[in-house]
Amino acid sequence: MPPLHRLTPALRRLRAPNTLCPLSRPSTSRSFHLSPRTLDEKASPTTSASSADHAPQEAPDRAQSKIKYTSDSYPDLKRDSRFKKVTKEDVEHFRSVLGSSEAAILDGVTNETGEEDFESFNSDWMRKYRGQCRLVLKPETTEQVSKVLKYCNEQMLAVVPQGGNSGLVGGSVPVFDEIIINLSRMNQVRSFDDVSGVLVAESGVILQQADEHVAKQSHIFPLDLGAKGTCQIGANVATNAGGLRLLRYGSMHGNILGLECVLPDGTIMDDLSKLRKNNTGYDLKQLFIGGEGTIGIITAISILCPQRSNAVNVAYFGLESYEKVMEAFKEAKKQLGEILSAFELMDAASQSLYHKASGAKLPLEAEHPFYCLIETSGSNTEHDSEKLNAFLEHVMSEEIVSDGVMAESETQVQSLWACREGISEAGQHWGGVYKYDLSIPLPELYELVEDARKMFEGNGLMSAEDESFPVVDVVGYGHMGDSNLHLNVAVRRYDKEVEKALEPWVYEWVAKRQGSISAEHGLGIAKKAYIGYSRSETMIKLMKQVKGLFDPNGIMNPYKYI
Amino acid sequence: MPPLHRLTPALRRLRAPNTLCPLSRPSTSRSFHLSPRTLDEKASPTTSASSADHAPQEAPDRAQSKIKYTSDSYPDLKRDSRFKKVTKEDVEHFRSVLGSSEAAILDGVTNETGEEDFESFNSDWMRKYRGQCRLVLKPETTEQVSKVLKYCNEQMLAVVPQGGNSGLVGGSVPVFDEIIINLSRMNQVRSFDDVSGVLVAESGVILQQADEHVAKQSHIFPLDLGAKGTCQIGANVATNAGGLRLLRYGSMHGNILGLECVLPDGTIMDDLSKLRKNNTGYDLKQLFIGGEGTIGIITAISILCPQRSNAVNVAYFGLESYEKVMEAFKEAKKQLGEILSAFELMDAASQSLYHKASGAKLPLEAEHPFYCLIETSGSNTEHDSEKLNAFLEHVMSEEIVSDGVMAESETQVQSLWACREGISEAGQHWGGVYKYDLSIPLPELYELVEDARKMFEGNGLMSAEDESFPVVDVVGYGHMGDSNLHLNVAVRRYDKEVEKALEPWVYEWVAKRQGSISAEHGLGIAKKAYIGYSRSETMIKLMKQVKGLFDPNGIMNPYKYI
Repeated sequence: MPPLHRLTPALRRLRAPNTLCPLSRPSTSRSFHLSPRTLDEKASPTTSASSADHAPQEAPDRAQSKIKYTSDSYPDLKRDSRFKKVTKEDVEHFRSVLGSSEAAILDGVTNETGEEDFESFNSDWMRKYRGQCRLVLKPETTEQVSKVLKYCNEQMLAVVPQGGNSGLVGGSVPVFDEIIINLSRMNQVRSFDDVSGVLVAESGVILQQADEHVAKQSHIFPLDLGAKGTCQIGANVATNAGGLRLLRYGSMHGNILGLECVLPDGTIMDDLSKLRKNNTGYDLKQLFIGGEGTIGIITAISILCPQRSNAVNVAYFGLESYEKVMEAFKEAKKQLGEILSAFELMDAASQSLYHKASGAKLPLEAEHPFYCLIETSGSNTEHDSEKLNAFLEHVMSEEIVSDGVMAESETQVQSLWACREGISEAGQHWGGVYKYDLSIPLPELYELVEDARKMFEGNGLMSAEDESFPVVDVVGYGHMGDSNLHLNVAVRRYDKEVEKALEPWVYEWVAKRQGSISAEHGLGIAKKAYIGYSRSETMIKLMKQVKGLFDPNGIMNPYKYI
Repeated sequence: MPPLHRLTPALRRLRAPNTLCPLSRPSTSRSFHLSPRTLDEKASPTTSASSADHAPQEAPDRAQSKIKYTSDSYPDLKRDSRFKKVTKEDVEHFRSVLGSSEAAILDGVTNETGEEDFESFNSDWMRKYRGQCRLVLKPETTEQVSKVLKYCNEQMLAVVPQGGNSGLVGGSVPVFDEIIINLSRMNQVRSFDDVSGVLVAESGVILQQADEHVAKQSHIFPLDLGAKGTCQIGANVATNAGGLRLLRYGSMHGNILGLECVLPDGTIMDDLSKLRKNNTGYDLKQLFIGGEGTIGIITAISILCPQRSNAVNVAYFGLESYEKVMEAFKEAKKQLGEILSAFELMDAASQSLYHKASGAKLPLEAEHPFYCLIETSGSNTEHDSEKLNAFLEHVMSEEIVSDGVMAESETQVQSLWACREGISEAGQHWGGVYKYDLSIPLPELYELVEDARKMFEGNGLMSAEDESFPVVDVVGYGHMGDSNLHLNVAVRRYDKEVEKALEPWVYEWVAKRQGSISAEHGLGIAKKAYIGYSRSETMIKLMKQVKGLFDPNGIMNPYKYI
């Protein structure tokens, strides 16, 4: 049996200054969540998602002074002429509902408000999508949302509900001149019961603030993601955000106990239940979870928050094949069961890329075809360490795992996580990266990476050394525990030939295996055209009927979703 | 600090023969699940639910030769004349689809099949509801279900989907002459992946068999309930069954990954995803979870099965107030976190009733106003015992808990559970029991019991001693961890005055606190009239629109639900 390494010095070496490509975990990193310090830390301006798996298809050009209008990027998309253009009378009406303060209305219709003031509302953070809205409404109460929507529905004014605007598929910015209904002023925590763990809060509460609120009473918000410093909980629900805690705490569909929504006609759907069990009719709120603001606006949520774990442990190990990774995952579920909170996969190429781009030394001396990162969270540090040790000793003596290290300090926890979380940014090192966020049944999950590599070897587009080839390497990594693969194609330059080789090839590959073309980012405008790869015609037809039922005028977030 | 009892002999005494009222746990008891033996045990004929919390409003009179027709119990309900009566031609058509074997069709239309052959299909197990169906169809494939439904929809033939027929609200039996579509022959496990834990199985698979199937590979079906020996997994999903594992594993809305459903017009909705993450459009399958067969028939499910726990521990303790119970629950969540799998509440009256009815000695010597039962399930026996011990020592030294015992053998685990699970049957000891299954926000949960007691003291209907009073006692118990209270009113005889005092008083009480009048049993025919106490007019209107969208002819499970 190979020895179980405790490479404390090696792990510490990862902290050496890194001049090539500074890779820091976002201030919202999981390890920090678990120390009391976090609660006092302010959210960093969220470009954090840029170091997460949630980067756009093309790296945003931050130097670019103006972002291309979405209507220019999608020339086939025409403004729906059924929608009225906003008039001075409309603005007057909205003032009568919301008041006249600048906090409530950003008005470019009756005022000379410059386009730059609308920039942060019209454009997404990736600088990939840009709308032409000239009126932003910021209601403060559910009643105001109701009055605004009722009026818009009667007047055929199209609207876009907007949270923290940190989405990745262009769902939260207008395409043309839709009115933005921004939820940021609806940011009150209505109640938290520390016995049941049920939090009731308005949609505009920032995810991190929601987590900090319940953390004071030893609970945890059952969702965590890179953009937690800016994203809002209502929009998290509307996009059915998955994030880092899904393996442990499950999805929104299980954790959301109730919603308060405003329908397009102004009806307030008060389904803000705090109950875990309520079998009285169709569970309509589920349609709003992941509905991307197309059938109504979520104004408040009721969510079950689990107990916060006291103990966190992280291990990192090397394995010789994907089959061994699957075995290790099986063993981890068996031996770590209730404390397993992350099981992340990284292939050799991803770690090599990370090493080359960042200059950071990898935790293990030798190279392995695959690497995994395991995190446990539990109520007792000693018990958890003992379980994790026993697990690691077992998988090493059975030669499932070839080598491994275990973090022994919070710093080391961070260093190990950097090997996983640094991959996304590392991919950009040579010029750019094509990214796909896919769900694939576990047994076949890694085949996509191998097949993509074969394809690029076959068509002569890839070379690790020769700079005349566009593709540098294909890497695979992701949330093994959720069957969620990130396929990254690192390139020296964006190239039409590479794009043609990848699409629709990737979507077809995924569709054949009943995977999902969007594991968690949603459809928005970016994937609207591709839903057919993940949903049958029957399903799409039914979805359109549901849309028609709730939003017969089609004013809610048009041009997107289905 | 009072000593922590280890009352092994006392617990053993609970095993003494019990002549008054034999209270045995169903063969499907949780403690047994966790021993390898279970896998070889055959399901007992399921009257097991009779010893669970799921007893009918009135105790069934098993001696009664004929059950009253539902149409007689609900004289206001008239057969919908839009529905065609089944003809010989219809039966011929169904034979062409399903074949002519008796296994496929039970035909009282063209044959002289006697009414008694239809008894088990027309009547529910409580012998409370009885329909007048003369045609039972038992399809074997999804395509057959599709052809059958398409024909019924075109011909305006009303249908009732039927699983194990162990429901409690009359949802699975016809009211008039609806055709029964029984799913019992669709009983194949299609696949189980022991890496991801995803089981895909047809609707007619018995819950216990599904659990045994995944148990072979160290997984657990994330649902457990008294009727597991007869109930079917498709119907479990259709009724959004909650059961015993909800506190730990969450609800169907989170665990169901995909469904295959047949819509009334015969459309097969193939949404049998095996993915944990799939953000591509409205999550329509959620409408079928808890839809009670009113918008389509679930033919197969895809469900995430967690790892099975190796270790189970059970403790039972006494507390001096409901406030202390809440504190104990908070501490249990904090200290037992990830291993807590049950937190059950029993009041003094419930334990006294159990003791009087069964003659069994209670685990604690002294009497306490409240009792709780805690169960932990984890991957390591020693760790779990240590955590549970530390928890008990803490709550006792802090005087949150007054006294406690911990089971040290499987027999003792059973004995402690009997104190909780025996209450339902014990209630029948004096004659009968009025039962309510309610969700109430935790802080107010027990007030209902106190208020009910006050009410009966005030109106002179209750006396513990005087046999001329109808009510013996009011007891409260239930799944504290799920905010689910069982209110039982033990009576010497069923009495109109008691009923008038209870209803709609109980429903109004619950509605005022935003509780649910049906925590997990569903609506069926029994609670159809009361949905307004738990859902707003807006919600009911929307639900009716959804029903209309999926089932425009209204042939699916008519006269029930909303």
